[in-house]
Amino acid sequence: MPPAQLPEALGPILDLLDMAGIAVFALTGAVVAAVKRQTFVTFLFFAVVTGIGGGTVRDLLIGAPVFWVHENWTLLICFGAALAVWLSPARLWKGKTLLWLDAAGLAAYATFGAAKGLAFGLAPLPAFGMGVLTGCLGGIVRDVLAGEPSILMRRELYVTVAALSAALLVGLSLAGMPGGIAGPIAFAAGFALRGAAIWRGWSLPAYER
Amino acid sequence: MPPAQLPEALGPILDLLDMAGIAVFALTGAVVAAVKRQTFVTFLFFAVVTGIGGGTVRDLLIGAPVFWVHENWTLLICFGAALAVWLSPARLWKGKTLLWLDAAGLAAYATFGAAKGLAFGLAPLPAFGMGVLTGCLGGIVRDVLAGEPSILMRRELYVTVAALSAALLVGLSLAGMPGGIAGPIAFAAGFALRGAAIWRGWSLPAYER
Amino acid sequence: MPPAQLPEALGPILDLLDMAGIAVFALTGAVVAAVKRQTFVTFLFFAVVTGIGGGTVRDLLIGAPVFWVHENWTLLICFGAALAVWLSPARLWKGKTLLWLDAAGLAAYATFGAAKGLAFGLAPLPAFGMGVLTGCLGGIVRDVLAGEPSILMRRELYVTVAALSAALLVGLSLAGMPGGIAGPIAFAAGFALRGAAIWRGWSLPAYER
Repeated sequence: MPPAQLPEALGPILDLLDMAGIAVFALTGAVVAAVKRQTFVTFLFFAVVTGIGGGTVRDLLIGAPVFWVHENWTLLICFGAALAVWLSPARLWKGKTLLWLDAAGLAAYATFGAAKGLAFGLAPLPAFGMGVLTGCLGGIVRDVLAGEPSILMRRELYVTVAALSAALLVGLSLAGMPGGIAGPIAFAAGFALRGAAIWRGWSLPAYER
Repeated sequence: MPPAQLPEALGPILDLLDMAGIAVFALTGAVVAAVKRQTFVTFLFFAVVTGIGGGTVRDLLIGAPVFWVHENWTLLICFGAALAVWLSPARLWKGKTLLWLDAAGLAAYATFGAAKGLAFGLAPLPAFGMGVLTGCLGGIVRDVLAGEPSILMRRELYVTVAALSAALLVGLSLAGMPGGIAGPIAFAAGFALRGAAIWRGWSLPAYER
Repeated sequence: MPPAQLPEALGPILDLLDMAGIAVFALTGAVVAAVKRQTFVTFLFFAVVTGIGGGTVRDLLIGAPVFWVHENWTLLICFGAALAVWLSPARLWKGKTLLWLDAAGLAAYATFGAAKGLAFGLAPLPAFGMGVLTGCLGGIVRDVLAGEPSILMRRELYVTVAALSAALLVGLSLAGMPGGIAGPIAFAAGFALRGAAIWRGWSLPAYER
């Protein structure tokens, strides 16, 4: 049985990754709502679903209490992100801003998701899978709801990024490294790889037969 | 830890809203199947997914046992709704019937979802969010499965309606009003607002920058 | 309260159906990724989501611990399926291979899902619904993610097949037949019906009013 509370062991640095993941994914959700010229209520909806979607599924899968239902601040972060995008000049969110925010959310959630999976007693491969799935999920749901082609179907490095962060966190933790060191390493490696994909256009070879 | 059983406090009036939400959402699911000229089995599938989708996600999120798995009647209501649409004259479901049924389901589920959230000890903002999310979810899933553009992307008042019902239920309950009074008020206000949106074409301003 | 562990009663034959369902659904996910000319990482993602999607939702709904999070082998099966499709000659997966694999997964998961529902104390109708929903879910999610029209919207016998397997398993079990006999019968009947639908083009009449 997994413990009902998140173990202390995750520590403050991983908590920061968690909050960063929520905030930047919520921003990307609100930016998609802006690009699609939606109403403020849709901004809120997209910010919330994108911000907490991945973590919610993670908690359901590992048998943890869903992280945002017993306090108000998680939703306040998402509402704040929606308001920030609504009120700020549109040029702030033009170009590649969305991609970079999404990159940070992806690496942060993949790292934190894998760490939380380990903390709840998952086997290594499922803990890795939890990082990948929950890192990618918020963005996938955001794209499906907006009627955009999913990032899954492009050759660009994306799921691979979540896989790198999650694998590093699981591998380094199993090797005995504390989460406060393994977390930042896993996050930075994933963010750098996604950055290279955005900046240099790195992509994987596709199936050609 | 949330209690394993739904508190008595929700009472018979909120139970009625719950059953009404299931029945009318199931009807809307079956009507969409009819509009798309589907088979009876698809009628059943759409009726079930639309009728119980929102409440199922709500129960998973708040840590309640999923409401329809330990008795037969919820699914029987959904099957009955599918049969009713299959057997009745098509003109009954033409025009705006679907919209009005959906309006009733939306306000009922938003109210009941928020009340059930509070009853399971959620913080006010998540209880509000539970009402909004679960009020809107059945219809969103129905539209995605049918390949229709989601109501989320239109400027019409829709999510706002769920927000009004959920906010009223949470606010009035926190102010000390019993659920048997706050519930009908929250339902009626949401239904009236959605009615104005359907009848008068009320909508929210969109992001224009 | 449902028991925390899967009852012994499900037995080795139903376990085989479970593993078969995972493997063939994982294969179909990887084949869809191949048809869409995706990268290997997307092969893995599709294999995992399709292979374990239906069973994951089933476990969440019936309150069972999610079946794949406490060991490594389930994900290894899915990874193996992705690798097999990536490395093997494309002609193996051309034509109707995908349809037949999907047929086996559908009947296996519908049977096993209904049996697990009964084993966790569900009422008969929800146990039946659990078989149908989880038998169909993996394939539906696979198609939605790939941007394909869902099987749900075609007249071909598909959901009906899951309904036949699930109804037989529930009915025969309630009549006292052991799972080791009822399971293979329910699986074979569903697979045969789906086979007839693929081979002979059997379909249901659509709503025509």
